[in-house]
Amino acid sequence: MISKKMEELGKKSSVIREIFEYGKKRKAELGEDKVFDFSLGNPSIPAPQKFTETLRSLIDNSCPTALHGYTSAPGDMGVREAIAADISSRFGASASATDIYMTCGAAASLTITLHALINEGDEVVLLAPFFPEYRVFCEKAGARVKVVYCREPDFLPGREQLAAAITEKTKAIIINSPNNPTGVIIPTEKMLEIAEVLKNKAKEYGTDIYIIADEPYRELSYEMEVPYIPNLYDNTVVCYSYSKSLSLPGERIGYIFVSPKAAAASDLFAAVCGAGRSLGFVCAPSLMQYAVRECIGLTADVEEYRQNRDLLYSALCDMGFSAIHPDGAFYLFLKAPNGNAEDFCEKAKKYELLLVPGDSFGGEGYVRISYCVSREQIEHSLPAFRKLAKDCMGEK
Amino acid sequence: MISKKMEELGKKSSVIREIFEYGKKRKAELGEDKVFDFSLGNPSIPAPQKFTETLRSLIDNSCPTALHGYTSAPGDMGVREAIAADISSRFGASASATDIYMTCGAAASLTITLHALINEGDEVVLLAPFFPEYRVFCEKAGARVKVVYCREPDFLPGREQLAAAITEKTKAIIINSPNNPTGVIIPTEKMLEIAEVLKNKAKEYGTDIYIIADEPYRELSYEMEVPYIPNLYDNTVVCYSYSKSLSLPGERIGYIFVSPKAAAASDLFAAVCGAGRSLGFVCAPSLMQYAVRECIGLTADVEEYRQNRDLLYSALCDMGFSAIHPDGAFYLFLKAPNGNAEDFCEKAKKYELLLVPGDSFGGEGYVRISYCVSREQIEHSLPAFRKLAKDCMGEK
Repeated sequence: MISKKMEELGKKSSVIREIFEYGKKRKAELGEDKVFDFSLGNPSIPAPQKFTETLRSLIDNSCPTALHGYTSAPGDMGVREAIAADISSRFGASASATDIYMTCGAAASLTITLHALINEGDEVVLLAPFFPEYRVFCEKAGARVKVVYCREPDFLPGREQLAAAITEKTKAIIINSPNNPTGVIIPTEKMLEIAEVLKNKAKEYGTDIYIIADEPYRELSYEMEVPYIPNLYDNTVVCYSYSKSLSLPGERIGYIFVSPKAAAASDLFAAVCGAGRSLGFVCAPSLMQYAVRECIGLTADVEEYRQNRDLLYSALCDMGFSAIHPDGAFYLFLKAPNGNAEDFCEKAKKYELLLVPGDSFGGEGYVRISYCVSREQIEHSLPAFRKLAKDCMGEK
Repeated sequence: MISKKMEELGKKSSVIREIFEYGKKRKAELGEDKVFDFSLGNPSIPAPQKFTETLRSLIDNSCPTALHGYTSAPGDMGVREAIAADISSRFGASASATDIYMTCGAAASLTITLHALINEGDEVVLLAPFFPEYRVFCEKAGARVKVVYCREPDFLPGREQLAAAITEKTKAIIINSPNNPTGVIIPTEKMLEIAEVLKNKAKEYGTDIYIIADEPYRELSYEMEVPYIPNLYDNTVVCYSYSKSLSLPGERIGYIFVSPKAAAASDLFAAVCGAGRSLGFVCAPSLMQYAVRECIGLTADVEEYRQNRDLLYSALCDMGFSAIHPDGAFYLFLKAPNGNAEDFCEKAKKYELLLVPGDSFGGEGYVRISYCVSREQIEHSLPAFRKLAKDCMGEK
């Protein structure tokens, strides 16, 4: 018998993927421009021109055996130095190259960190709504998941609920700000409150509790500053990816930053190296390591997403819908008018609007709309949204 | 407490890496050309010109959001189709795109396959000498390792020893041919014998036993044909990587092929998808997926390695050393004249020859010499080898 757990996981197709496949079918039937697919978080803005030029220049000017050769297991030292210097200068956090482990994307950053931290039976706190794969990653690492539900009006975790979820077995909490699927950014005061709760609980139990800061959307913030968690809480591991900031989701390049202020930081960094090694994640893709080094501090043209957000948010509110105002990322979390997200998504399909029910994110009663799409798609979809509004809520 | 197991693994530096670091230090002291580093398996032949041209053309002619966007989780369908077609036409094995899972390199192929197959407490048979990370990967997947030692004269597994190692808990055996560190290719007759032993044992215990064929060196064969294991044994999963065949070790691109003839093949493929998902390995690096599609069937200039092998093997034999004649890969497994590999490697250091003791591969009494180096390095090292021979064995 093979691993039944893995088999089931492989067979259980993701809700998002199912909707995406349905969309492809409908587009083939009706035409590309007749179907409004808001299901995927695939960046619609191209990578910056400089990134493309950097790739060309690396290919033209490097010796292929060096360019495509093994880097050291935690990544090329020059790349790690450049990233550490950027963290230090941008955030004032003191980072060294030896705190940085280059990874093959955000998922890798998270699984490596979890396997480094978790002993069988430890607990990880997740703030719902959350990216559904968090649960899969935690459980594979041997952790039990405890969920704290964040709800209206601000979708931020309550102090009491958070405190109640923490036990002596709590090893970590995953914080994703800006958040997928709500677009919410946790402000500094709330982060300080979370930090205080964790510190008090760790003291009470005589344990160390780590924040795993999952930050693929850090650069996608429209007005608010995203607080840098290592500056507010010592026991922090940052999981970063260039997927969204440089519009490179397919290239799988990111890093782990173990804050040198974390408890047992150097042991933890060693554990990150050990977890990377045993999971098969050493030496992140070399060409991409060298390319992102040249593009540090650069981001894709985020203004496009902001304009998408403004257009979609105000139009939907005008129609009578209610949604969380997203401060970052490229998702809009919309309330299903009758409170049933699955029903609402089915109804939306009648108008060729493909939305994702929030249930699989632990956000029941809401739907996720990915606005990392072309401006035209949003503009052309508005009449369909209007019909949907009328269908659900009657004439306004 | 963080994961002590992962911490220890991260702190235990690999013997090969230690020698490599020592070499860097010595080169800084004495000059690049005075130190003969034979420790690493980093290809010395550049990637084929066509590969570089393909990268350029993809970058110049593709839309960046498509080129660097998410592929589907098991890989781009067109890439998988091209690989399946190549397997079918080259080996006559019937492969479909839906049997192929694109991975982030050889290590990923192995860990995903192991996590898909293994239930806690299952056993995996390894044929020593073997790549030391096999043990790390197996144990992380929850498997117990059973070792079958292959020894002189041919370094192939004996029928009786193999049969004795298989129990009702045996889930898989890893076969690595051409072999790292010996360069041995398992011939068809021996593969058929192995297949027969596995089939008989599986029948005896009423189990399924899988061969995991780790094939990064498949294309590095100098005279012999490397039998295609799925044609000789149904329950086979091939773990492939382009690291050596296209000289791209840093790029981490490969695939898993689940033979459609394997027991519960479609469940197993689902388990591969589930393992990939839960370990954080979906959607292998996109640019590299598209690039290898255009280079299928192409290999780096292997003739260079063959000439290195011939030069080194005959020179060392002339000096009185005894070594296994390598039919493939780019390693020479040399017998330590006094039987103690560690002593021999220390002695070699006196002549600035950096070799790797075979002990960590389960090949005690031998040393590994990586001949994926420049011709000049081999030529210039011969006087040093001669002195070493005299030191160890006296005048010839």
